[in-house]
Amino acid sequence: MGTVGIVGLGLIGGSIGLALKRSKLAGTQIVGYDRDLDVALRAQRFGAVDGVGRTLAGLADTAGLIVIATPIVAMRGVFAEIGPRLQQGAVVTDVASTKGEVLRWASELLPAYVHFVGGHPMAGKEQTGPQAAEAGLFDGRPYCIVPSLDAHPGSVNAVMGLAEAVGGVPFFLDADEHDAYAAAISHVPLVASVALFSLARNSNAWPELASMAGTGFKDLTRLASGSPEMSHDIFLTNKKNLGHWIDRYIGELLKIRDLIESDDPEAIFRAVAEVQIEREEYLANPPRREVPGDTLPDMPSPQQAFLNLLAGSMWMDRAREMTQSLEERARQRDRDDRLRRRE
Amino acid sequence: MGTVGIVGLGLIGGSIGLALKRSKLAGTQIVGYDRDLDVALRAQRFGAVDGVGRTLAGLADTAGLIVIATPIVAMRGVFAEIGPRLQQGAVVTDVASTKGEVLRWASELLPAYVHFVGGHPMAGKEQTGPQAAEAGLFDGRPYCIVPSLDAHPGSVNAVMGLAEAVGGVPFFLDADEHDAYAAAISHVPLVASVALFSLARNSNAWPELASMAGTGFKDLTRLASGSPEMSHDIFLTNKKNLGHWIDRYIGELLKIRDLIESDDPEAIFRAVAEVQIEREEYLANPPRREVPGDTLPDMPSPQQAFLNLLAGSMWMDRAREMTQSLEERARQRDRDDRLRRRE
Repeated sequence: MGTVGIVGLGLIGGSIGLALKRSKLAGTQIVGYDRDLDVALRAQRFGAVDGVGRTLAGLADTAGLIVIATPIVAMRGVFAEIGPRLQQGAVVTDVASTKGEVLRWASELLPAYVHFVGGHPMAGKEQTGPQAAEAGLFDGRPYCIVPSLDAHPGSVNAVMGLAEAVGGVPFFLDADEHDAYAAAISHVPLVASVALFSLARNSNAWPELASMAGTGFKDLTRLASGSPEMSHDIFLTNKKNLGHWIDRYIGELLKIRDLIESDDPEAIFRAVAEVQIEREEYLANPPRREVPGDTLPDMPSPQQAFLNLLAGSMWMDRAREMTQSLEERARQRDRDDRLRRRE
Repeated sequence: MGTVGIVGLGLIGGSIGLALKRSKLAGTQIVGYDRDLDVALRAQRFGAVDGVGRTLAGLADTAGLIVIATPIVAMRGVFAEIGPRLQQGAVVTDVASTKGEVLRWASELLPAYVHFVGGHPMAGKEQTGPQAAEAGLFDGRPYCIVPSLDAHPGSVNAVMGLAEAVGGVPFFLDADEHDAYAAAISHVPLVASVALFSLARNSNAWPELASMAGTGFKDLTRLASGSPEMSHDIFLTNKKNLGHWIDRYIGELLKIRDLIESDDPEAIFRAVAEVQIEREEYLANPPRREVPGDTLPDMPSPQQAFLNLLAGSMWMDRAREMTQSLEERARQRDRDDRLRRRE
């Protein structure tokens, strides 16, 4: 029987567990671990995991696939602790919002016979903890897959299978690309949201501003309610990219400021109309980059790779039997149908 | 019979109509006008108005209360056109997102025997046109009321009654306050949203960024899909405040940039945790400024003032009759009950 270990059972770890259980992987056991035993037991009560491991080392002993869903900064310690205990050929992945540091820690602390493939599902919400977890959190959302340079293609495929099993859309990047793009599309929006809330909150007119605030202010400051631990970890592990993209964001703000200053009605209208059209176009036909993973030659499918990893041959045999029995039943139905039509 | 005229039957004008009809003001007729007759007829079909005026001047002739819900920049022309036709004592209000220019135009173009009281319901969405209108759009939302300096208290009360009739929460400000606060709480969020979308859209990595975008990016760039006409008008009529508050917003962004640059984990955590706590506190207990309108002495209630304005004595008599008949029926029920208890 294959075991998936989930380390960290908050919103994301809990949702991975629920989504995996929803996908009904026969013969797969999901074991969770959380530094806070109470959180782990709650996750089990919500059905996110089949069992709870008492120690991290114990989990590492048994799991063929480990998903690390702790805060980013804590991952280094997790690698150090599980490294010596992991099985030969085990696959380790994570869900961190930044990838450069995480891949460096993995290559430094995990043994060479273990495969690390970074992951980052682009989903979340403000609530935290396993009680906020949802089986559908990743449905249709991009799931970044960031292999280490020496990652074994089979393990990359297995993590791609995990991404699909939880409902995500795999999206391949290297760590540098990931962290630059995540800064632009995810971390600067977080900074923009925090700054917007602080702008109003730090003003002497805050009581008036708060009384007047409509849905726009609430929606745009939503990310300022996210987990402080996560923001803290993102700021610490994506410093250079954040600096670069905040500067570019300020550049965009100054362009709009100049435009307003210009008092040129036509230029103002053209600029805002262009942005509106482009955003509508983006919502209607979002550009999609090809998934290079699809082009890997002569590899088992991601689903197959994921199952191979989890299962071992016993489960594969059972799956084959199940498939045969399904095919047998289909053939039988077919025969019955034909007989009925003749009557 | 009192007539409310609504000029401009898009999202806001249409929603005012629907909300007024929902409030079932007996004996009140709602007549709409739109430069685009097709829009006006659509609004009528959706039930936002009882009738459609063919000319603006004709509407001005008959309405005791006129709500101007055109784009801001068009309001000047509307004032010029209706000014000479308005009835003595008519009340004119608007729904513009900025108030300084609008009040200047009103004082310049409306005759002295007409009362102008600015209004700004803090509600909206990206969709435009009467088909997007909703009776509940203003429910529980702040509704700014910005009287001109020489506004008659009775007409201020009438517009407060209108705000309440459509479900809003009246909130009093003067024009300068309004435009400064609206810049901070509503127009800078719009600019922040447009800049965030442009940042990603103008990048060479746009296809990758768009593929990777999660809900955060979508939510934070929502306002960039708003009506370009509205953004254009806001930028043109609130230039000075926008410049000031964009600079302060950039100041907040630079503070976060410096914080990230500092690499000081404790300071970073403290800062983001503080913002998170403050935003939760704001959501749980939003500060509310007192409504000075409540303290006007010896005035009819806003609802009464609104009805007085719309109604004229005939309707008031009918209302009194209805009240008497209700009281009569209540007394009758009371008698019946007592009789039954004796049996």
